[in-house]
Amino acid sequence: MTGRRLKHWGWGYEDQAPTATQLREAGEGIRARFGFGGEVEKPVALKDVKIRKARLGAPEAFGDLFSDAHFERVSHALGKAYRDVVRGFRGEFENPPDLVAFPRDESEIETVFSWAEAEGAAVIPFGGGTSVVGGVEARLGERPVVTMDLRRLDRVLEVDPTSLAARIQAGATGPRLEEQLREHGLTLRHFPQSFEYATLGGWIATRAGGHFATLLTHIEDLVESARAITPRGTWESRRLPGSGAGPSPDRLLAGSEGILGAISEAWVRVRPRPEFKLSAGVEFDDFIAAAGAVRGIAQSGLFPSNCRLLDASEAELTGAGDGSADLLVLGFESAHHPVDAAMETALEIAREHGGTVKSGPSGRETAAGSKEEGGDGSGDAVGAWRGAFLLAPYLRDTFVACGVLSETFETAITWDRLEEFHATVMETTRTAVAEVTGSPREGAGAPRVSCRFTHVYPDGAAPYFTVLAPAVRGGEVEQWDEIKAAVSEALIAGGGTITHHHAVGRDHRPWYDRQRPAPFAAALRAAKAELDPAGMLNPGVLIDPA
Amino acid sequence: MTGRRLKHWGWGYEDQAPTATQLREAGEGIRARFGFGGEVEKPVALKDVKIRKARLGAPEAFGDLFSDAHFERVSHALGKAYRDVVRGFRGEFENPPDLVAFPRDESEIETVFSWAEAEGAAVIPFGGGTSVVGGVEARLGERPVVTMDLRRLDRVLEVDPTSLAARIQAGATGPRLEEQLREHGLTLRHFPQSFEYATLGGWIATRAGGHFATLLTHIEDLVESARAITPRGTWESRRLPGSGAGPSPDRLLAGSEGILGAISEAWVRVRPRPEFKLSAGVEFDDFIAAAGAVRGIAQSGLFPSNCRLLDASEAELTGAGDGSADLLVLGFESAHHPVDAAMETALEIAREHGGTVKSGPSGRETAAGSKEEGGDGSGDAVGAWRGAFLLAPYLRDTFVACGVLSETFETAITWDRLEEFHATVMETTRTAVAEVTGSPREGAGAPRVSCRFTHVYPDGAAPYFTVLAPAVRGGEVEQWDEIKAAVSEALIAGGGTITHHHAVGRDHRPWYDRQRPAPFAAALRAAKAELDPAGMLNPGVLIDPA
Repeated sequence: MTGRRLKHWGWGYEDQAPTATQLREAGEGIRARFGFGGEVEKPVALKDVKIRKARLGAPEAFGDLFSDAHFERVSHALGKAYRDVVRGFRGEFENPPDLVAFPRDESEIETVFSWAEAEGAAVIPFGGGTSVVGGVEARLGERPVVTMDLRRLDRVLEVDPTSLAARIQAGATGPRLEEQLREHGLTLRHFPQSFEYATLGGWIATRAGGHFATLLTHIEDLVESARAITPRGTWESRRLPGSGAGPSPDRLLAGSEGILGAISEAWVRVRPRPEFKLSAGVEFDDFIAAAGAVRGIAQSGLFPSNCRLLDASEAELTGAGDGSADLLVLGFESAHHPVDAAMETALEIAREHGGTVKSGPSGRETAAGSKEEGGDGSGDAVGAWRGAFLLAPYLRDTFVACGVLSETFETAITWDRLEEFHATVMETTRTAVAEVTGSPREGAGAPRVSCRFTHVYPDGAAPYFTVLAPAVRGGEVEQWDEIKAAVSEALIAGGGTITHHHAVGRDHRPWYDRQRPAPFAAALRAAKAELDPAGMLNPGVLIDPA
Repeated sequence: MTGRRLKHWGWGYEDQAPTATQLREAGEGIRARFGFGGEVEKPVALKDVKIRKARLGAPEAFGDLFSDAHFERVSHALGKAYRDVVRGFRGEFENPPDLVAFPRDESEIETVFSWAEAEGAAVIPFGGGTSVVGGVEARLGERPVVTMDLRRLDRVLEVDPTSLAARIQAGATGPRLEEQLREHGLTLRHFPQSFEYATLGGWIATRAGGHFATLLTHIEDLVESARAITPRGTWESRRLPGSGAGPSPDRLLAGSEGILGAISEAWVRVRPRPEFKLSAGVEFDDFIAAAGAVRGIAQSGLFPSNCRLLDASEAELTGAGDGSADLLVLGFESAHHPVDAAMETALEIAREHGGTVKSGPSGRETAAGSKEEGGDGSGDAVGAWRGAFLLAPYLRDTFVACGVLSETFETAITWDRLEEFHATVMETTRTAVAEVTGSPREGAGAPRVSCRFTHVYPDGAAPYFTVLAPAVRGGEVEQWDEIKAAVSEALIAGGGTITHHHAVGRDHRPWYDRQRPAPFAAALRAAKAELDPAGMLNPGVLIDPA
């Protein structure tokens, strides 16, 4: 790939890395604010990164389809979990792919498959590489690995303005597909935190959660049909607004995380940009009361586009509050009709549960060309939160440099179990983090554990937990693994899901294996064996390698 | 089963069969109205039905778990497609099960599986037996068959009023589950035409379409988790409001039509009964203009609960109109807030597309205990259509007796292709029906072909076609098969689905096989072979018998 180059570790482009001065100032700010971290370390430079010698030579017959360049092998070696970022920072790329392939079309995907199969190599489909669950790391021992980067497939191929649908190649990132849809006055409105870098195919493969806090919460809710290349041929579903013909093929592909095939394109449901938008911030002095308000709104049938509840600590962390109150960020939008009445009805529910409207309802237009999540509503609590949302992954790189362990856990749970579940997970996380990092549980220098709801449903919510703690320099991965295990255990034991929208990958396997129905696991294994008899597609993800 | 007994053929209970006088009058009415049919024949009485000798003896070790009673074998031999009803009427039960099993709990389901496996028998899971696609008929040649009727599993086991969810056994029919939910002030609000007789498990197994014309169109949209007994163990998903952990297990079970296991229970999303309801009837003098209005409403984000478009002929047929205009039946409902504004906005869209509001908007309360679809809004066009909706399957039995061929075909298509698709399917159907029945295409005695939209989406609609034509006495099945093939060919060639909510069964197989992605079919076959190595579960449905 040419032009601006992504960092070989962490988030964003090389030119976005903070300067030494910025980092020093950030470190001082972190220390002053949290009471831990702050001493700035430097990442290992790309040229100093030592990786395993490639076990496959790039075949010359296919032009520039395959690359064994150092930068490509390094920058495709890891995802973007904290444990990935910290290893990348330290120059630890234990499992680099031997080759990186950059197919331009479906026939080149097939070429990669057949060449890799003949070589006995594994193939890891790779979109933005933003997996936070070990979804793209080749932990495969001696087996050679080709990582297949699909970002050359980045076009909007067709737009159907009548049905409000578009056929988009799987390797298009959020900005790439939005800029092409904008020419038609349309938008996908899928704005996960990975928006800038992740791809449509990656989102579908991992059931990514997006912009809409209710109703159309996951990318698969926007998929009209999908197309994938499998070692056993092309998987293409019909464009249908709805169907009852057998189990949904699209719903088996969604969440398959690259183990059944490489998604090459999809018809997705798009929409005109919203003309009417209102947002409001409502404060509560009790998180469970606030959750009651959210439940009321989620069960009302009003379907707000945003309905994110931040606990007091999370609100403070993101600059959306002063830490004294929980904050409900409520938004309605429509391309068709005013949303004032819906907002008023939702605010009434919030008030009935003890909420105080602190900002809005106010509407703002989004500057054409800016990202909705980032460019909207700045200047108040709602806008502050939105800005922080997209900046968080960048900030994490700074945290790593400054010795701060930062991570998130997310799940979903029905309302009846929410209060106890929330209390248990918060307590488990606080205890694990304090123990693992040797920190006090409360007061100065104590780790920060906070919670927000990212998506809500009539029958439950998706709580999302954020941890900030002092890192043990050089022992971050072990710290992370220990905390991850303790929290994941609490999520699964409490009846939640190991992931609401981050996917399973390799990191969530032990808990996913306990969560899924055993006969479903057997069915999935059999399906994979049928479509991928060589067991070469993303081995170890979702199910054990054959 | 004791008490009131279902007819051994056709729709409803034995005591609901029309008298000879009623049938004669109906025949005269039909002849006067349509110009064909009218001579009343009598069905073959149960005692005169001759069926194949049972190839399995009911094992005595399991009490009344198995039955080889004549009535049970006959009444479980067929579904409720026209081709089933007409065969039942004539006493032609070619493929009766050898035994019918009535498990009371999951362990008895397991008993049936293991006993049948040892006997080399097939097992057909059976809910209400309302399949219109050959989903429960054992066309299996020499292989002995146990049909497993799950209606003894008919209880609401648990209600979670906080999350608005209920755990319901798979064999509960619509009325049974609604009467138990009513004690809690809740309702599932899934009102397919099969409501009175079909079961929750059957709905999930076939991805049944229900009450809501938008948004939550299929039963799987209401499923929070599901439990099934497979020959390889119990399949149980977690109760989760949303998840991103691998492909959805529930979405593989939904639509599996009994080939992977027998669904035993599910947690479903329920809701308080609506307090606010409005309905309106809007007339159009052009079907495609009306479709444009429906598209506008479907893309508006208003999410009406009802948005059914009847063409002029369909409106006349159901007594909702005089045949001079197309009718849009529009409804909004909420348990939480008034729906007047939403209705007004939708009606405004309808007017912009040339619609004239002919009835309503008016709200009516539903008498407690009555069925929503049937008991609501009587006295106007909207109410007339609703009444006709639930009566249609009863009426079909009368049509059979009176020599009228009646059938329906349903599909879904994106908006961009709708106009041409609708024209082609209508034309194909008219031609096929006229040819097959030797009728004039127009004028007196011509067959009736009409269309309605049952469900609509932002990206398309689900058109539903109704055919009434003179039957060739004794040749009805061949007539039906020929028409079915011609129409199905048009649906598939035009880009539609072979079924939007009637399922695949055995009758839709040739077209389903062309519709689904080949690698998905391979995956499904492999999954079945893994879970059902003896290939005993509903062989021939969705995929070929092993």
